[in-house]
Amino acid sequence: MGGKVYVVGIGPGGEEQLTPQARRAMERADVLCGYTVYIDLVRPLFPDKETYTTPMTRERERCRWAMETARAGRTVAMLCSGDAGVYGMAGPVAQLAPEFPEVELEMVPGITAALSGGAVLGAPLMHDFCVISLSDLLTPWEKIENRLLCAARGDFSICLYNPSSKKRADYLRRACGILLREKGPETVCGWVRNIGREGQERRVLTLAELREETVDMFTTVFIGSSTTQALEGWMVTPRGYEAKA
Amino acid sequence: MGGKVYVVGIGPGGEEQLTPQARRAMERADVLCGYTVYIDLVRPLFPDKETYTTPMTRERERCRWAMETARAGRTVAMLCSGDAGVYGMAGPVAQLAPEFPEVELEMVPGITAALSGGAVLGAPLMHDFCVISLSDLLTPWEKIENRLLCAARGDFSICLYNPSSKKRADYLRRACGILLREKGPETVCGWVRNIGREGQERRVLTLAELREETVDMFTTVFIGSSTTQALEGWMVTPRGYEAKA
Repeated sequence: MGGKVYVVGIGPGGEEQLTPQARRAMERADVLCGYTVYIDLVRPLFPDKETYTTPMTRERERCRWAMETARAGRTVAMLCSGDAGVYGMAGPVAQLAPEFPEVELEMVPGITAALSGGAVLGAPLMHDFCVISLSDLLTPWEKIENRLLCAARGDFSICLYNPSSKKRADYLRRACGILLREKGPETVCGWVRNIGREGQERRVLTLAELREETVDMFTTVFIGSSTTQALEGWMVTPRGYEAKA
Repeated sequence: MGGKVYVVGIGPGGEEQLTPQARRAMERADVLCGYTVYIDLVRPLFPDKETYTTPMTRERERCRWAMETARAGRTVAMLCSGDAGVYGMAGPVAQLAPEFPEVELEMVPGITAALSGGAVLGAPLMHDFCVISLSDLLTPWEKIENRLLCAARGDFSICLYNPSSKKRADYLRRACGILLREKGPETVCGWVRNIGREGQERRVLTLAELREETVDMFTTVFIGSSTTQALEGWMVTPRGYEAKA
């Protein structure tokens, strides 16, 4: 008789964007599993809950541990920042499903940064959009570059995750350079740092200014489409209603 | 002294994916405003709350009504299915901000269908993805076609909103035809109908099968990247960890 693994998106980290479904999954779990920072975010809600933490680069081990623990009959909640299915653990866990057929899986969606950060800036996405990660740890830069070009040529609104890290300090500049091949320098952009947390910051700026900007790994970046506007401090991509009589 | 408008994403409609922040915005509002179906979804939570409903095609009037009502000193919660900033009301409301500077605005993110539907299918997005609406009510089909081609050429995972309606019964077929110019017919796809509601249905299938599928307006469609797999009934796009030693 196998147990269950919930893969849970906890949102930006605060209680106010944690869904009831996510909270219940964690209540039902015998043990919470995840990256140390995420466990610490929810610990105040479950001070007596057993936890299992692993460092950032040991995701596959964490998933295997969760499935093995569930196979032994326990219920595990694997925690992910934002949404479990957007650069989270839903994929790696599901990839183990064939090896652990007796374990029940349930994915619990959460508020990913494109949405929580978007709400801080106003309505930067609104219409068709792309989400792209600038992290080339697992993806060749050539593939990221192609995606940036395709996103620009499709005139999508764009949201960039992982725009920067110690080893990748110039990636945002490089990405902006690629986008500027297809998009105007006045394209309205924005970023949000520490979404929903202490020290949250936001800025609305042009693509030319964004290229000169220094951002960190806690920042989510938004690049507008050809129709995006800056209005009263909000970054707003029209839905198209203006074309209606 | 102006009032406030909250633009609130209520998620798929059930209480379990309604965030505390969204619930509090509705509690604080003097009146809930929105499309009749969304008001009815939350009415059990706020049985005595004043409401103002409008039909689906009167969004701009609804936004103006909300801003005028707030300017008179009241607090309005404008409700949107899913997330307010993804084909929702955040943009149209923010576009009125210059005309109503005394009104405070707050956008409240919610679980959009790409995430709630994605969780039902497993992990269809996972990595870089695009969201595209097949509704050409406000967007020329040529633009939609270009976006589908760009999304395919970028090898993004793709999520399609509004895949079908009475007047647009063959749009999914047309979209699949366009994608098949760049993607293989065996590309793993999926759809979810009535996400999170009574009568929820799901299916994992190939792109060739998807082209022959009949879906309705309550369905969200997912098209995989070149690496997406079908595993034990789950639609799973790898994060790329397999490439790691």
